[in-house]
Amino acid sequence: MTLLPDLATARAARLAYRQGLSAPTAGVAPGFTQCNMISLPKDWAWDFLLYAQRNPKPCPVLDVTDPGSHVTALAEGADLRTDIPAYRIWRDGVLSEETTDATAHWAELPDLVTFLIGCSFTFETPLQQAGISVRHIEQGCNVPMYLTNRACRPAGRLHGQMVVSMRPIPADRVAEAAMISGRTPAVHGAPVHIGAPEALGIADLSRPDFGDPVEIRAGEIPVFWACGVTPQAAVMASKPPFAITHAPGYMFVTDIPDTHWQV
Amino acid sequence: MTLLPDLATARAARLAYRQGLSAPTAGVAPGFTQCNMISLPKDWAWDFLLYAQRNPKPCPVLDVTDPGSHVTALAEGADLRTDIPAYRIWRDGVLSEETTDATAHWAELPDLVTFLIGCSFTFETPLQQAGISVRHIEQGCNVPMYLTNRACRPAGRLHGQMVVSMRPIPADRVAEAAMISGRTPAVHGAPVHIGAPEALGIADLSRPDFGDPVEIRAGEIPVFWACGVTPQAAVMASKPPFAITHAPGYMFVTDIPDTHWQV
Repeated sequence: MTLLPDLATARAARLAYRQGLSAPTAGVAPGFTQCNMISLPKDWAWDFLLYAQRNPKPCPVLDVTDPGSHVTALAEGADLRTDIPAYRIWRDGVLSEETTDATAHWAELPDLVTFLIGCSFTFETPLQQAGISVRHIEQGCNVPMYLTNRACRPAGRLHGQMVVSMRPIPADRVAEAAMISGRTPAVHGAPVHIGAPEALGIADLSRPDFGDPVEIRAGEIPVFWACGVTPQAAVMASKPPFAITHAPGYMFVTDIPDTHWQV
Repeated sequence: MTLLPDLATARAARLAYRQGLSAPTAGVAPGFTQCNMISLPKDWAWDFLLYAQRNPKPCPVLDVTDPGSHVTALAEGADLRTDIPAYRIWRDGVLSEETTDATAHWAELPDLVTFLIGCSFTFETPLQQAGISVRHIEQGCNVPMYLTNRACRPAGRLHGQMVVSMRPIPADRVAEAAMISGRTPAVHGAPVHIGAPEALGIADLSRPDFGDPVEIRAGEIPVFWACGVTPQAAVMASKPPFAITHAPGYMFVTDIPDTHWQV
């Protein structure tokens, strides 16, 4: 047993997804950064990069491809068209299809620009190392995510509400969870909201907008982190003609150790 | 005497610069964020925002204006054309003029997009509060800045070397200076290099490329932070047809407390 993250686990995960495996990625390749993805026509790239700059908590950009490219500096040899376990195809802001291989859709437009955005799964390893259990990993399901009533700062044609992920944390560990995640702002950083889901416009925690519900036990507080599904909420609200994203919770596993983002 | 930053000092500074005062801004309006500035034609804005995303240590973007706008969310009532103590006008990558009022130059192009970028002056207040003296403030001069041999990651038509600022720090306080500045990555964060200036391609610390030389005393180590003059190095190397920047060390003083950026 070693405490060093093993690059072979990240590469094996991407290869399995390339070959068609489709499953949520929480707990996969511990110690490595995971990413949200959104590909947009070049004509929308400026609006999106500005949207991300104006909303850095939900949209911390870790890499941007050249138009039409499907490689990234974050993972050598990876193919962004196939190496994510599930993709969503969007037309005029409407989800048109979910697939495990987006190669054919990528071929529809020659100038797609792809944005890789930090994911909160990245700080789950440090949480677990501190003895803070992550409920959706315990339960073997996807993380619960909610559309909030908090408007993002618009940019050009893009607007929408912030999406959050939720982890129930024992009340006496909430401060520590905030501090541990706060050390990595590039993967969403500290929580945006602790307790009081109704203040975020969340009526029922057992009915997440994305992902799966998880058990909240006595003495636990729901803790909310900004979530990289926020760009998909912007797609739904702003209706660009075409977009490819990952499916919520089905992330791109990179070769970058999570410690890389610690400040 | 109060330890709370006084917004009146930031507003008075901007007003004085608007009325023509021209002086370096280190030590001005303590407790408030200062910014580097670069305005580029809209056609170059994507390349620049991508350059900043790919080089977050020297180019942390704090705000981006709409094309042709000269207001910012960082300082209510400020006019970006007049409220910086000195501007540089660039044509085809060559410095053509220095001025205290860029209104006429702003009028040359209707679609300038302006980027405000974090400045290391912002963490000088926390350094001083910890008892770490800042030599160029002591000496009443500009901070020394150097063009390094470190290439930034290119983006589109933009490329160039990284610029650094230097502060001499007593050897037994260097680690603390690294940690204090590291808490605010949005204003350059931790140093990029400590000691060994020759490894950065700096032959003579007494001859900075920008700003003024400062005394280095026995037992002090030169500590180098990524610098927001890096976009000006990119302008010189990449030759966009037109650009307006601040003059190095003559920054835009905002209304945002420096603590806002702490992680």
